[in-house]
Amino acid sequence: MSIHTLLQTRRDGRTHSREEIEELVRGAVDGTIKDYQLSAWLMAAYLNPLSPEETALLTVAMANSGETLDLSSLPKPRLDKHSTGGVGDKTSIALLPILASCGVTIVKMSGRGLGITGGTIDKLSAIPGFRLDFSPDQLIEQAGRIGIALSGQTPLLAPADKVLYALRDATETVESIPLIVSSILSKKMAVGADTIVLDVKCGSGAFMKDIDDARRLAQELRRIASLVGLRSRIALSDMSVPLGKKVGNSLELQEAFDTLCGADTGRFRQLCIRLSGMALEACELVCSRSEGEKMALDAIESGKARQKAEQWIEAQGGNPAVVRNFALLPRSKYEKTIRSPHSGWIQSIDAQTIGEVAIDLGAGRKVKEDLLDLGAGLVFAVEPGDRIRQGEPLVTLYADSESKIAGVEERLIEAIRFSETPITPNPLLIDVI
Amino acid sequence: MSIHTLLQTRRDGRTHSREEIEELVRGAVDGTIKDYQLSAWLMAAYLNPLSPEETALLTVAMANSGETLDLSSLPKPRLDKHSTGGVGDKTSIALLPILASCGVTIVKMSGRGLGITGGTIDKLSAIPGFRLDFSPDQLIEQAGRIGIALSGQTPLLAPADKVLYALRDATETVESIPLIVSSILSKKMAVGADTIVLDVKCGSGAFMKDIDDARRLAQELRRIASLVGLRSRIALSDMSVPLGKKVGNSLELQEAFDTLCGADTGRFRQLCIRLSGMALEACELVCSRSEGEKMALDAIESGKARQKAEQWIEAQGGNPAVVRNFALLPRSKYEKTIRSPHSGWIQSIDAQTIGEVAIDLGAGRKVKEDLLDLGAGLVFAVEPGDRIRQGEPLVTLYADSESKIAGVEERLIEAIRFSETPITPNPLLIDVI
Repeated sequence: MSIHTLLQTRRDGRTHSREEIEELVRGAVDGTIKDYQLSAWLMAAYLNPLSPEETALLTVAMANSGETLDLSSLPKPRLDKHSTGGVGDKTSIALLPILASCGVTIVKMSGRGLGITGGTIDKLSAIPGFRLDFSPDQLIEQAGRIGIALSGQTPLLAPADKVLYALRDATETVESIPLIVSSILSKKMAVGADTIVLDVKCGSGAFMKDIDDARRLAQELRRIASLVGLRSRIALSDMSVPLGKKVGNSLELQEAFDTLCGADTGRFRQLCIRLSGMALEACELVCSRSEGEKMALDAIESGKARQKAEQWIEAQGGNPAVVRNFALLPRSKYEKTIRSPHSGWIQSIDAQTIGEVAIDLGAGRKVKEDLLDLGAGLVFAVEPGDRIRQGEPLVTLYADSESKIAGVEERLIEAIRFSETPITPNPLLIDVI
Repeated sequence: MSIHTLLQTRRDGRTHSREEIEELVRGAVDGTIKDYQLSAWLMAAYLNPLSPEETALLTVAMANSGETLDLSSLPKPRLDKHSTGGVGDKTSIALLPILASCGVTIVKMSGRGLGITGGTIDKLSAIPGFRLDFSPDQLIEQAGRIGIALSGQTPLLAPADKVLYALRDATETVESIPLIVSSILSKKMAVGADTIVLDVKCGSGAFMKDIDDARRLAQELRRIASLVGLRSRIALSDMSVPLGKKVGNSLELQEAFDTLCGADTGRFRQLCIRLSGMALEACELVCSRSEGEKMALDAIESGKARQKAEQWIEAQGGNPAVVRNFALLPRSKYEKTIRSPHSGWIQSIDAQTIGEVAIDLGAGRKVKEDLLDLGAGLVFAVEPGDRIRQGEPLVTLYADSESKIAGVEERLIEAIRFSETPITPNPLLIDVI
């Protein structure tokens, strides 16, 4: 078999054999298939999408293309959680301790953020001393001991996905559902969990802007997960507005910790409980999502979830006191509170604009070499559906210079829509697939 | 504008602007567009073919991407001739002197052969002393003096086509009619002729195997030539059987020279006269193809065509005596005549097999680094439609070793079909577009 056969097959919309897919993945990693041939294949795969069976084969081949974790020594259920990312998405930081405190074992490798999508790794790196450079053996040891372990992604994990993703990014072939699915699931497979909970975000602040596309992605994730032997639940959740009231690395940690400490953080807390219910049901620790939600609520209210978060942070070298003392977290030098120009109800806050504003304030990266200001970001006083009067505090901005704050104010105000009549915001959790 | 816009436009099947096409071509030449991005664009262009207007824009941009010849000082009509190539296709070598002797000015740059398709440059290099390394100025000077000049292709001519062609070859995106058309016509435009005659070969020994594909290519060549301001005539000719009775570099020269000297070389001579008639009509030196054919026949029978060939060979540094004295041409060390295993009529001779046999005898290249045995090849005693009796000479093989000859005999015989009843072979010239 040759790359020419591979290219012809994809180009002509025929079906790849297992050998062809394995050859593609091997060639991508060892360089025997040139990048210009891989990118031609990717464009052909974009225009003649892979079948579910081909997608499953690609997922498995990419998962096996590098290092894999063997979690068989850890207690079941072994869960992994992934979000397609969005503005203000700090869900993992709250969810992992909640689930671990309910008896789930979680080993997770997270990525850094790029563009308007924040990265869990970036947020956690705002905790002084928190280490993210664990070896597979260290991750497994820690997860066995406390039920939870998280690190940055090793480049040895699913290296084929890294090669293909970089080329997709350079050749406008990212947005192919089978390629997205195999990229996400191959990394989950390599980490070795048996159950996965995926949160597919949809809206202006997410990779998927359109609900129909997002639903198709969710359905395909579920289908391919099943083909490769993973139990899964896929949430379809709203990202037309930022998730929660806080956006920015240190600020989002605070919102997650507040939630773990039992504070009513509004829509963000609701989503955490819904996703926890879904995960606990997927892990078969409960018989229904509502039973799982009750278990998650108990974990928060009993203090078990917070204690698990403290145990986790301590195990990874961080100061566990940050969970209750935000003065230990990075804080930007300048802040400014903007007051509401109108009276009424918050109808919407455009997530994409807020994501861009957060980048400009220093909370995110435009290119992967950018340095972050971990304290920078926004804190909204309100969220969609809330009532506000003219002149009341609307949002506070944090940055390391006054000019950065001044540079975003106008755009920020324009991103917020007010209604003169009461609004019932759309639910954050749109569907579970 | 960015490569990302270019890729999105092609991927989504929308229409490129002139600026986008020019940016693509500029980026291909100066390296600002990476090869993996170009190949993704090529696959998208294969699957979402360029419109005629886009193809014309690409043709012009590629023609202007490097050196161009200015033929304005030369007498009109200024013709260029191109064949898509095939087995035994020595047409240019006969056609150029015929047309030049009729008053046409011809400046031509030819390529080397690869695979079963022989190259005009390779055939002419069998003439001792024949130079093929002329500068544009030298070509123009010679064409002004004797009406005919030919050289190998300079890498400075249409360099964008070279970059894109190499990538197409590596990524299974060669067979896209708009890409083929722009590749052919861009090189013709860069050479500066105002009239072009193209011979699209069709059949097992040609790039285009299928008559419908070949006809579509011919029609598209005519259409795009017109859009870029070139007068054109496109021949659709048969390549299911080898062209003429001789295959191999020195051997094909002999068949072309025999034709120029007025010998009846059968179907090859007929095609030369038909194509000449077409070219002379395209150049408006005559009012109809049949009048052109008569002019070509006169040129041969009067000796003018042969004299022009001698003048041409002398001008390019070769020994003009080769036209009448084949002992001056390279000859392989070994020859073997195979006799007919059957009595009957020659029904067909598979061109692709003969092309492969010729390569194995040393007359062609499998890879571009292969050295040629200029004397190697085949001489058929008969062609389709001819009658033969068992035991009569059928074909003579030439090579530099007996083992090469022994290695091809069986395949060669299998490539020839005999009929027990008389056969009227299909005409070589299928259509003129």
